[in-house]
Amino acid sequence: MVMTGEDHVTQIETSCFDLVSYLKEKKQLVEAALDASIPITCPEKIYEAMRYSLLAGGKRLRPILCLTTCELMGGTVEMALPTACALEMIHTMSLIHDDLPAMDNDDYRRGQLTNHKVYGEDIAILAGDALLSYAFEHVATQTHNVSLTNLVDVIARLGRTVGAAGLVGGQVLDLESEGKSNITSDILKFIHVHKTGALLETSVVSGAILAGANLEDIERLSHYAQNIGLAFQIIDDILDITSTQAELGKTAGKDKQAQKATYPSLWGLEESQKQAQILIEDAIAQLAPYGREAYPLEAIARFIVSRKN
Amino acid sequence: MVMTGEDHVTQIETSCFDLVSYLKEKKQLVEAALDASIPITCPEKIYEAMRYSLLAGGKRLRPILCLTTCELMGGTVEMALPTACALEMIHTMSLIHDDLPAMDNDDYRRGQLTNHKVYGEDIAILAGDALLSYAFEHVATQTHNVSLTNLVDVIARLGRTVGAAGLVGGQVLDLESEGKSNITSDILKFIHVHKTGALLETSVVSGAILAGANLEDIERLSHYAQNIGLAFQIIDDILDITSTQAELGKTAGKDKQAQKATYPSLWGLEESQKQAQILIEDAIAQLAPYGREAYPLEAIARFIVSRKN
Repeated sequence: MVMTGEDHVTQIETSCFDLVSYLKEKKQLVEAALDASIPITCPEKIYEAMRYSLLAGGKRLRPILCLTTCELMGGTVEMALPTACALEMIHTMSLIHDDLPAMDNDDYRRGQLTNHKVYGEDIAILAGDALLSYAFEHVATQTHNVSLTNLVDVIARLGRTVGAAGLVGGQVLDLESEGKSNITSDILKFIHVHKTGALLETSVVSGAILAGANLEDIERLSHYAQNIGLAFQIIDDILDITSTQAELGKTAGKDKQAQKATYPSLWGLEESQKQAQILIEDAIAQLAPYGREAYPLEAIARFIVSRKN
Repeated sequence: MVMTGEDHVTQIETSCFDLVSYLKEKKQLVEAALDASIPITCPEKIYEAMRYSLLAGGKRLRPILCLTTCELMGGTVEMALPTACALEMIHTMSLIHDDLPAMDNDDYRRGQLTNHKVYGEDIAILAGDALLSYAFEHVATQTHNVSLTNLVDVIARLGRTVGAAGLVGGQVLDLESEGKSNITSDILKFIHVHKTGALLETSVVSGAILAGANLEDIERLSHYAQNIGLAFQIIDDILDITSTQAELGKTAGKDKQAQKATYPSLWGLEESQKQAQILIEDAIAQLAPYGREAYPLEAIARFIVSRKN
C-alpha cells in the first residue's frame, strides 16, 4: 500500500489520540456496570461463581466496541451499556464452558484458576448457563430509549452469535480439528470467524443498531469488525507461541501441545503477522467516511495487532 | 371442599372435553414446528446433537400450555408458536445439562441414551448452549403480529426463567441438598419452584402476554401455573418411587439412590398425592371466570395428577 500525504497526516493525528486513557475510561464504566448487574442472592454459590469469572478483569474489548460504535453512530453510552454487559456475559460464558475438562481442560484463565477449578464442574456449567440466559434478560429489561424494533434485532443477533451459527459452531469444528494434520486455511478461517469473529462483529454491529444506524453504515462496520476479528485471532495464535503464561494470564503453548492448526503453523510467524496487518489496514479503510469521530475504532484496530496479551 | 351442584355439572362437562385428542393435535403442531426450526447445516454434528434431544418426544407440556393460554386470552397459535418452541428448547437444554456426569450423571432420558452418551460430553454441553441461545434467536426473529413491548417482556421472562433466579438456581440448591438429611419442605419447595415451576409458569404466562392479556388475567394464570408446577413435581417424585424405568423412560428410583429429599420422603406417598390434588383444585379454581374456554387448561391440570410418566 502506497501511503499518500493525507494518509500520513491522518495516521499522525490518530497516533495522538490517547487510546490508553480512552480504553481505561470505558473499561471503568463497563466494570462498574458489570459489578452492579449481578447482585448476590440465594443460592449465593451460583451468583458468586458467575461474578468470579465475569469480574475477573480482561480487556473488555467487546463491550467497549459496542459502546464506541453506538457513540460513533450518534447514540449514547446509556443506550448501549446493557448490551455491552450482555456481550461480556456471553464471552465469559463461552470461556467458562470452553475451559471445562470435557473441552479444552484449562486450569488458568485471566491469571486465576478457571471457574470449575474453584467451584466444581457442575457449578461451572450452571454458571455459564446462567450468564447466558441473564445476558438476554439484562438486555431486554435494562435497555431504554432504543426503538423496540432495533432492540429485538440486537437480541436476535446475540442469540445467533452464541449458537451453532456462531461461537458454538466454531468450537465444535475446533474440537473436531484437534490433532488432524489436514486442516486447511479455509477450515481454520471457518473456526475463527465463528469462534471469535462472530461475537466481535455482533459487538460492533449491535452498538450501531442500538443507535439507529442505517444499513450502509451497518455493512461498513460489519466489514471493519470481521477484519479485526480475524486479525485478533491471528495475533492470539502468535501470542500462544511467543508469550509466557505470566504474560498471557492463561496457559501458553497450548495450541502446539494440542496439535492445533493455527495461522503460524500454516503460514509461519512472519506471514501471519503480515496478514494480520493487512486485515487491520482494510478494517481502518472502512472508517474513512467518519473522519475523526472514528479515531477510537481506528486506534482499537491498531491496538489489536500490537497487543502483548 | 364441598362440591356444589354447579361444580358437579362443570366437572362432568370437563370430563367430556377430549383432552387426549386436544393434546395430540397440539403436540403434532409443536413437533412439526420444532422439526422445522433447526435444519442441519455445517458443522452437522452439533445440529444433529441438538435435534437428537429436541425431537426425542416427551409430552411437550410447556409449549402446549403456552399455545393454550395464548388462545384462551384471544391470541392465535401462530402468535405463540415460536415461543412455544423456545420453551421446549430451553427445557431440553436443561435436561441435557442436568444429565451430564458432572451433574445427575444419567444414561437414559425419554427412553433413549442421554445426549452425552451418544455425542460425548463436550458436544452435549455445546448442544445445550446452542439450544439455549437459539431459543432467544427463534423468538426474536420468528414472532409476528405481537406487540413488541409484549415480545420483549416475554424474552425477559424467558431469560429470568433459565438463570440463577429460575432453573439454574433450583438445580444448584438441588445439587447442594443431595445426601443431606435436614432438608425442610421449605427448601424442597424452593428447589421445585425454581427447577420445575418457573418454566411451567413462564410457559403459561408468556402465552397470555403474547396475546396481550391484562395484568389481572396474567396474575390469575400465574397462580394457576404455580400450583400445577408444584403438583407436577410432587407427582414426579411419587412416580420415581412407584414406576419402573420402562414406564418413565428414564432411570427410576434415582431420588432414593441419591438420597434426595422428596415430597414422599417428607410427607409419605398418600399425603403427597393429597397435596398434589389440593394444588390442582386450587389451580382449577383460578380458571372460573373463563368458563368453557378454559376446559383445556382445566383438563391439563387434572392430567398432571393422574399421569403415569
